[in-house]
Amino acid sequence: MNKRKICAVVTARPSYSRIKTALKAIQEHPKLELQLVVAGSALLGRYGNAVKVIEKDGFTINEKVFMVLEGENPTAMAKTTGLGVMELSNVFYNLKPDAVITIADRFETIATSIAAAYQNIPLVHIQGGEVTGNIDEKVRHANTKLADLHLVASEDARDRVIKLGEDPTYVINTGCPSIDIAKEVLDTNDYNFNPIEKYGGVGANLDISNGYLVVMQHPETNRYESAREDVLCTLKAIHELNIPTFWFWPNVDAGSDGTSNGIRYYRENFNPENIRFFKNMEPNDFLHLLKNSDCLVGNSSVGIRECSFIGVPTVNIGTRQNRRKRGKNVVDVDYDTNEIKKAIQERISQKGLLSEHIYGEGNSGKQIAEALANTALIAHKTIMY
Amino acid sequence: MNKRKICAVVTARPSYSRIKTALKAIQEHPKLELQLVVAGSALLGRYGNAVKVIEKDGFTINEKVFMVLEGENPTAMAKTTGLGVMELSNVFYNLKPDAVITIADRFETIATSIAAAYQNIPLVHIQGGEVTGNIDEKVRHANTKLADLHLVASEDARDRVIKLGEDPTYVINTGCPSIDIAKEVLDTNDYNFNPIEKYGGVGANLDISNGYLVVMQHPETNRYESAREDVLCTLKAIHELNIPTFWFWPNVDAGSDGTSNGIRYYRENFNPENIRFFKNMEPNDFLHLLKNSDCLVGNSSVGIRECSFIGVPTVNIGTRQNRRKRGKNVVDVDYDTNEIKKAIQERISQKGLLSEHIYGEGNSGKQIAEALANTALIAHKTIMY
Amino acid sequence: MNKRKICAVVTARPSYSRIKTALKAIQEHPKLELQLVVAGSALLGRYGNAVKVIEKDGFTINEKVFMVLEGENPTAMAKTTGLGVMELSNVFYNLKPDAVITIADRFETIATSIAAAYQNIPLVHIQGGEVTGNIDEKVRHANTKLADLHLVASEDARDRVIKLGEDPTYVINTGCPSIDIAKEVLDTNDYNFNPIEKYGGVGANLDISNGYLVVMQHPETNRYESAREDVLCTLKAIHELNIPTFWFWPNVDAGSDGTSNGIRYYRENFNPENIRFFKNMEPNDFLHLLKNSDCLVGNSSVGIRECSFIGVPTVNIGTRQNRRKRGKNVVDVDYDTNEIKKAIQERISQKGLLSEHIYGEGNSGKQIAEALANTALIAHKTIMY
Amino acid sequence: MNKRKICAVVTARPSYSRIKTALKAIQEHPKLELQLVVAGSALLGRYGNAVKVIEKDGFTINEKVFMVLEGENPTAMAKTTGLGVMELSNVFYNLKPDAVITIADRFETIATSIAAAYQNIPLVHIQGGEVTGNIDEKVRHANTKLADLHLVASEDARDRVIKLGEDPTYVINTGCPSIDIAKEVLDTNDYNFNPIEKYGGVGANLDISNGYLVVMQHPETNRYESAREDVLCTLKAIHELNIPTFWFWPNVDAGSDGTSNGIRYYRENFNPENIRFFKNMEPNDFLHLLKNSDCLVGNSSVGIRECSFIGVPTVNIGTRQNRRKRGKNVVDVDYDTNEIKKAIQERISQKGLLSEHIYGEGNSGKQIAEALANTALIAHKTIMY
Repeated sequence: MNKRKICAVVTARPSYSRIKTALKAIQEHPKLELQLVVAGSALLGRYGNAVKVIEKDGFTINEKVFMVLEGENPTAMAKTTGLGVMELSNVFYNLKPDAVITIADRFETIATSIAAAYQNIPLVHIQGGEVTGNIDEKVRHANTKLADLHLVASEDARDRVIKLGEDPTYVINTGCPSIDIAKEVLDTNDYNFNPIEKYGGVGANLDISNGYLVVMQHPETNRYESAREDVLCTLKAIHELNIPTFWFWPNVDAGSDGTSNGIRYYRENFNPENIRFFKNMEPNDFLHLLKNSDCLVGNSSVGIRECSFIGVPTVNIGTRQNRRKRGKNVVDVDYDTNEIKKAIQERISQKGLLSEHIYGEGNSGKQIAEALANTALIAHKTIMY
Repeated sequence: MNKRKICAVVTARPSYSRIKTALKAIQEHPKLELQLVVAGSALLGRYGNAVKVIEKDGFTINEKVFMVLEGENPTAMAKTTGLGVMELSNVFYNLKPDAVITIADRFETIATSIAAAYQNIPLVHIQGGEVTGNIDEKVRHANTKLADLHLVASEDARDRVIKLGEDPTYVINTGCPSIDIAKEVLDTNDYNFNPIEKYGGVGANLDISNGYLVVMQHPETNRYESAREDVLCTLKAIHELNIPTFWFWPNVDAGSDGTSNGIRYYRENFNPENIRFFKNMEPNDFLHLLKNSDCLVGNSSVGIRECSFIGVPTVNIGTRQNRRKRGKNVVDVDYDTNEIKKAIQERISQKGLLSEHIYGEGNSGKQIAEALANTALIAHKTIMY
Repeated sequence: MNKRKICAVVTARPSYSRIKTALKAIQEHPKLELQLVVAGSALLGRYGNAVKVIEKDGFTINEKVFMVLEGENPTAMAKTTGLGVMELSNVFYNLKPDAVITIADRFETIATSIAAAYQNIPLVHIQGGEVTGNIDEKVRHANTKLADLHLVASEDARDRVIKLGEDPTYVINTGCPSIDIAKEVLDTNDYNFNPIEKYGGVGANLDISNGYLVVMQHPETNRYESAREDVLCTLKAIHELNIPTFWFWPNVDAGSDGTSNGIRYYRENFNPENIRFFKNMEPNDFLHLLKNSDCLVGNSSVGIRECSFIGVPTVNIGTRQNRRKRGKNVVDVDYDTNEIKKAIQERISQKGLLSEHIYGEGNSGKQIAEALANTALIAHKTIMY
Repeated sequence: MNKRKICAVVTARPSYSRIKTALKAIQEHPKLELQLVVAGSALLGRYGNAVKVIEKDGFTINEKVFMVLEGENPTAMAKTTGLGVMELSNVFYNLKPDAVITIADRFETIATSIAAAYQNIPLVHIQGGEVTGNIDEKVRHANTKLADLHLVASEDARDRVIKLGEDPTYVINTGCPSIDIAKEVLDTNDYNFNPIEKYGGVGANLDISNGYLVVMQHPETNRYESAREDVLCTLKAIHELNIPTFWFWPNVDAGSDGTSNGIRYYRENFNPENIRFFKNMEPNDFLHLLKNSDCLVGNSSVGIRECSFIGVPTVNIGTRQNRRKRGKNVVDVDYDTNEIKKAIQERISQKGLLSEHIYGEGNSGKQIAEALANTALIAHKTIMY
């Protein structure tokens, strides 16, 4: 029997965390063969060099696709996507996969979808059916309409994809692979890891014996002009709280230069003695850091997903995670220094959050592999009603 | 008061007929300014040089975008689309429109949608919410999910767009502008027009005093390998019926070379003495030709829309128009010579078809202009439920 | 010892004839490994589907690169080249050749040169140092300045490349591989081949028992607006002479639609009873056809090279072959029906042309392979004086 | 009389200095109309935002072209160039210039050349005929072979372009516009300018009352892997000399991330108390800074050109300026900390360097405008011998 060739396209550092255990499960599945394409900002040193982590994790990369156009504006985002369509069309033409996986809702993921759908290759969309604001919202649902098989992360998401006119046979709730890693982290008690020794980072030397915060704040694509101002709000709040903090640089996006500039400006001028800045960590390390932290601050979806499972308090800023199904670990605030400070203080005083299982039980990678092995692969569909 | 700058992108000959009266109405509207981009196959002689018709109709073209990649396969379709994203991103960056119009569901229309949506320009989608088979089906609904304002052509379509999670405020049934031209044609009784004198064409000299057929058959994108065979079925049926026939070449698509080859092969080898072949006609001329014909044969959407309004019998072949709302003028058949012959014979014996108004009353162009002038222009949205 | 990986990029039908025996020799050379990329119009049915001939000749194609942009103008030529740079950059990045071969002077060949040179891959240019008119002239010499190793086809060409500032160590006269095929054809006396049976073609049924002509006329890129008119001159001349004629369609270029339209128009309206039209023939068949013909007419370089070696009279029209070193088999005429007629009549009355060896002795393929195996491969250079 | 439309394409910060006075002179010339295209890294904040300087200087920009692909490798350089060809083809198609100017030899300048030459637009090359190492060397001479009119910066360069087979009528020594600015600076004695107040920069607070150095070091494209190591050599040398130093960040290139990383690493770890780092300065400010400095160190062509005219000692490191005609102000050294230190110490002890006029008299901008106004504009040529 021929194995099904499943081609996954990873275009950014955070997408890798959302698919890693599925990639492993595909690799190990007797009926599947993994083809791995690493593209976009996942290849760039400026954005954390995800490609090196992927290689270190033992994956063989079939193709690398350079497609990120420089330019601090939405035009560059659009053109990056156009370039991605052209490049990925070649890649799929050459790899001849039986199905292509596009992940979630980053702007460039629609390039994967078009390149596959237009070549009549069955398209699998991971993590459709969720709700956010921004261009991601448009991209995610457009991916759903281009895709043939939907492997969603929650029941809520499954209902929504079906309402979008998709055939329920092809909408499967596998949970989110990011939870698999979270489960593993939750289950590990003897993890020996010093983030500063291992990753260096720049900025203050932190004494974390009395607890610490983690910050991860990305620009919002529909207000990228205020990205610099937005990050300054948070920097001020964290600086004033004077709690030791691990701060992570944003991933590539129109506006990420605004965020980066804001951080650089603040460092040069205020030299905050309680913050240390990091480019990236391996997912496991990052989650252990989170697990032991007092609170995650920012607008990363990690706060909604992994932190809900692990039970880490989250102060979620702005509209980037709008209407994403969240647990009771999350409190939402505006881009406002005082609000942010107050929310953090309240959160860190709460103890004993329960872990919730909104995005799966921690075996999503395997469920995705099973779905890919056993569902009929189709490349055409019509809307259900 | 500044006029709203409305940028319409016409990428193919048939799309122009679907938007022409709206373009006129936008041009004449006191609150609107038209920006016209002509792109893709609309610029190419091989596909009927729609650009010349557009210029002859008195429109000023702001930008011409060459983006069609040669190659008889879906890879070229995908790459054409990627190229379109890149080129149109530039165009919108320079023209700075207040809204962009993307038309219907041809594969390259998603390029317009991405280039606008990613640059936060309000996107207007014309003729969403319909149902067909093929890649068009995926593209149409993906366009809907990328668009902010939906100007649909029927009530049926409006319901479907709303079910797709769009805000009813932004889903307006304007009818289809192609019906405006159909209405004008229906209302004109003294049209003096000899198609062979005006357009030449190649092939047989037709005596049409006892009636004639019109054929328009495109490749189906999800079975482009059989495009040649498919068109040969119809050629054989028409040849055997021996009724004078005006036959139109297909528009650009993966597989159009298959259709073209089939036609060329049949002509060289069988020299059918009842068929004359044409590349293109101006929409008005084409509709008068249809109006006076006994039957339209093939798989063009003209049979579903305009012919329903004018009351012309239509033999619709294959799945290209699947589930598109149709009137009682249409009969559906398979790619089968005998079925096609039989259906044509039955159809032409029926007389006195009533005109139906499924796709508008004949004033859609104006309704579209009004909607564009008076609806709030937004560039962000979230799914309704 | 590792074999040197030599990557040749074939972008068009005529380029293949100019490299075929070298490809074979590389394939068979103990120190070399062939990587073959087929790109551009060589992949397109409209332009003779060179790719099928290449596969039939037993070559394995490593990558196919679709890059031809449709559009009857120089803008499309430029953009095709830009697209070629992008696509071929990927290809070389993945194939990691030790050297890349770019062939001659077609507009898109500079894409190969840039993609290789910018990635510090030693670039080998075949057939530099010649002189023509048109954009080819600029492209050829620009290729020379981007290339590291020059395998030229004549002493005349070698002198010119050295005058261009190249190091004589890296300028080697290997002769032209097209002559290798010509030699083989000249040496074969029992070739059994009926062109009409084998290739079909369209148009008149020819009786060639009393001799025949071969016509091959391409558009000139710097006067592509007159391509239609130019080909009509020749069509009229050939029609009036009423000598049986094999006519070959042009290869892809800005203006090729002009030539194609001219041919189609003439056929529809004058139905010349002495001309049969062909898309393409395998090189061997084509040369046997030439060898037995009375005269080659048009502006193909075949008239200058192969026909000089085989000894076939050639009527060369226009400036496309300007200043290319030619033998006494060639007479030059303008785009003028009467001049063309007169020149053909004079030529076919001459018999017993001697074969001349201007472009090699018929062993160029092997000489190219030897040069590739034994010359130092460098990727940087400075101008000599 | 219609003015000649002259379209100049500026793709990088340093190119702007090399063309600025010519742009002014074209703008003011009664027979010329300037069209200005700003592209590539000239648009990017990371590389000094040349576009803002250009706008501040009062120029109207006709088109902005985003074309820089991210990725720290030569593949990204090649693809940036391919993208440039595609984008600039559109730009010229729309602007319809009578001539296009391509500047010098940066890798992406060949995109301008191809986009113009392939569309039969007369191409003017500024600063051909010089000699360096690297990919620049190949690009410069390839630009010469694509160009129709050559406005060179020295007699030496003129001779070389003519040897390359160009018609002497179209090879004009106008000198280099960068010298015009240098002359102006040399002639100004009351310039009041505090670089730290005006530009900020980051790093040490410098006391420059006893003299200072200026450093500008770019990666070499053919040894970009060692860019980090190369810059560390110089950082160490400058740090050890402990002379106050203005250090400028590199411009975009494969390998510029290596250089940037090296600088960042050195700052974080050694915090050199005698160096202040700057992104960019306006050309006038920069030249005044140079004029009053003790020595320029690095591999910028400014050391060869402007510093020769102004009379500033220059320590030129590595092979980037190989064989460029230099004055007696320049001493060449290897990437070797001790060599660099020794050369700087020797240079700064010498006083009273004479100004030399190798690259013009300081009126090149006007000479370029005159040449553009009065030379025949051709778009085709053949090699001279």
